[in-house]
Amino acid sequence: MTSSTNQVYPVIWHNNAVSLIDQTRLPNEYAFVEIHRSEDMAQAIKTMIVRGAPAIGVAAAYGMYLGAREIETSDRHQFLDRLDQVAQLLRSTRPTAVNLFWAISRMMKAAYETLGTVDEIKQILFQTAQSINVEDLQTCQAIGDRGLAVLPNTPEKLTILTHCNAGALATAGYGTALGVVRSAWREGRLARLFADETRPRLQGAKLTTWECVQEGIPVTLITDNMAAHCMKQGLIDAVVVGADRIAANGDAANKIGTYSLAIVAKSHNIPFFVAAPLSTVDFELSDGGKIPIEERNPEEIYQIGDTLITPSGIDYYNPAFDVTPAELITAIITENGAFAPANLAKSHLKQIR
Amino acid sequence: MTSSTNQVYPVIWHNNAVSLIDQTRLPNEYAFVEIHRSEDMAQAIKTMIVRGAPAIGVAAAYGMYLGAREIETSDRHQFLDRLDQVAQLLRSTRPTAVNLFWAISRMMKAAYETLGTVDEIKQILFQTAQSINVEDLQTCQAIGDRGLAVLPNTPEKLTILTHCNAGALATAGYGTALGVVRSAWREGRLARLFADETRPRLQGAKLTTWECVQEGIPVTLITDNMAAHCMKQGLIDAVVVGADRIAANGDAANKIGTYSLAIVAKSHNIPFFVAAPLSTVDFELSDGGKIPIEERNPEEIYQIGDTLITPSGIDYYNPAFDVTPAELITAIITENGAFAPANLAKSHLKQIR
Repeated sequence: MTSSTNQVYPVIWHNNAVSLIDQTRLPNEYAFVEIHRSEDMAQAIKTMIVRGAPAIGVAAAYGMYLGAREIETSDRHQFLDRLDQVAQLLRSTRPTAVNLFWAISRMMKAAYETLGTVDEIKQILFQTAQSINVEDLQTCQAIGDRGLAVLPNTPEKLTILTHCNAGALATAGYGTALGVVRSAWREGRLARLFADETRPRLQGAKLTTWECVQEGIPVTLITDNMAAHCMKQGLIDAVVVGADRIAANGDAANKIGTYSLAIVAKSHNIPFFVAAPLSTVDFELSDGGKIPIEERNPEEIYQIGDTLITPSGIDYYNPAFDVTPAELITAIITENGAFAPANLAKSHLKQIR
Repeated sequence: MTSSTNQVYPVIWHNNAVSLIDQTRLPNEYAFVEIHRSEDMAQAIKTMIVRGAPAIGVAAAYGMYLGAREIETSDRHQFLDRLDQVAQLLRSTRPTAVNLFWAISRMMKAAYETLGTVDEIKQILFQTAQSINVEDLQTCQAIGDRGLAVLPNTPEKLTILTHCNAGALATAGYGTALGVVRSAWREGRLARLFADETRPRLQGAKLTTWECVQEGIPVTLITDNMAAHCMKQGLIDAVVVGADRIAANGDAANKIGTYSLAIVAKSHNIPFFVAAPLSTVDFELSDGGKIPIEERNPEEIYQIGDTLITPSGIDYYNPAFDVTPAELITAIITENGAFAPANLAKSHLKQIR
């Protein structure tokens, strides 16, 4: 996949390596990092050079191939053993997003199911990673377009609020929540996006706004704690967010703050949508209480740029995600259509509209 | 009032001038600013060197005296005219906190009711400012102790969540919401304080944590959007916040994010208390919809220390306060006791307990 015009692709295969947009440097610097080895990919995922559940999946798939091509053996059994170690390394990077585990499993399955030589397996792994990348982009475009059907009919031009960055940067391209926003913008149904800044890492302030500027979408940045006040004043018509893992009952883990936003949306009768590919659904988990929640370094809270904002001698709590219960979610928008959370398990069969 | 040990007094009369803790420099630097003129006091209020509704009231009272002593006339009528100009200047600094207007009115009334010479009026103004200062400290201590009666009985040691800084720094001393926290700590009823960082100006991260460190109160800092997640996990037993203006029906304006916090507390059946002196109640306003909400500079959102966090070409919305409707408030804790919001109008007569 190659970049063109102002389209944003955070993970590109280029010059026999993976080129990642360094998302820790946006919006001040639009720079790429070249990744040649699986260890470097694991580090890039951990440090959030690449972040966002679907983008992590794509990056991990390429990471599996980078690991595979380094394995110097022609013995199939030995190769698969060492590939499994690569898989373990990549799986250990971040615990919450299920797309990571899904992509790695798909790569392992492709390897095990290929009966040819090690070189042939390596070739299949490369093709599988490319497929995951291309499919994710197509999936996001489908999510965006499917989302149009469930957005409120009035007003004609909607103001949508989003949290964190579930945009092109969080996927192979186009985005999930921002995919819906992009499709609404293209169809003349969007007046403006409101973006929560999304503490502690400020993905809304840094990444979502940046994506909007690239495409000329009008965007108003607020701090996370202003959302309820905006809703009360009638400024918000719908909320659309992404997800890192969705349980079979429709409970959805997403960036910390999503749960709070869902509660306040409900109390203002504002529809609350989760936009995510079906690969984000973990059908093996009955409910969201079982989703592991990553806790990250307190430095993310107390240091912003070079500025330390707190005194010493205090404690911190820094959960990176929370779980929004299904009953607060109006619909989950997938590439196969939008589903009431209760119907998610039947998502391959049945759609809301 | 003079400072002693680790007690925090943000507004002190010292050496014939007002000494303000420069709250814009905390927690990195504990420095004082000397204010000799009413214009400088107006600027200090505007730029939030001094902030917090009751502290602004005390500062404005001294500001009135500083203005009064500069007026060089012995003509009573001329003096009062010029004092009224000082009042206008001080009133124009910040629109939401009612204590500002209350303190200025009390000073004007003291001047009008003094029938002696201009020098005698000046003397009365100084005494009135001192009284406002001393009374606010006593009021806060009463609020803190009155709050003990309405805190949940179990667990024995509570974890209380607060938002922004309604502490010693926001008052003459001791604090309103943090007054309740201090009293609970003194009585062995507090396990720990959770503090919202309170974007955009981070008063929770910078000031509330700093006050806790001064007194050894265990404090855990979270970002604003983590509160609901903490509640869901059973980490929070009660929420206590301050207020900048309370309408007669009990609707309460406080730092942006309070409304959101009240909604999520309600949805977890966690009691939500507003602690404020009766001087914060604007009995002339029937409901909170009529409270003017200050909108501040977007720079507060996009710049943290020297770090710019957003791309150029985007819009901002920066309301400094929001209004929490009475039905989300368990009780309003005043110096006369705690009242259900509906009983606030009868607050001089009747108490919950």
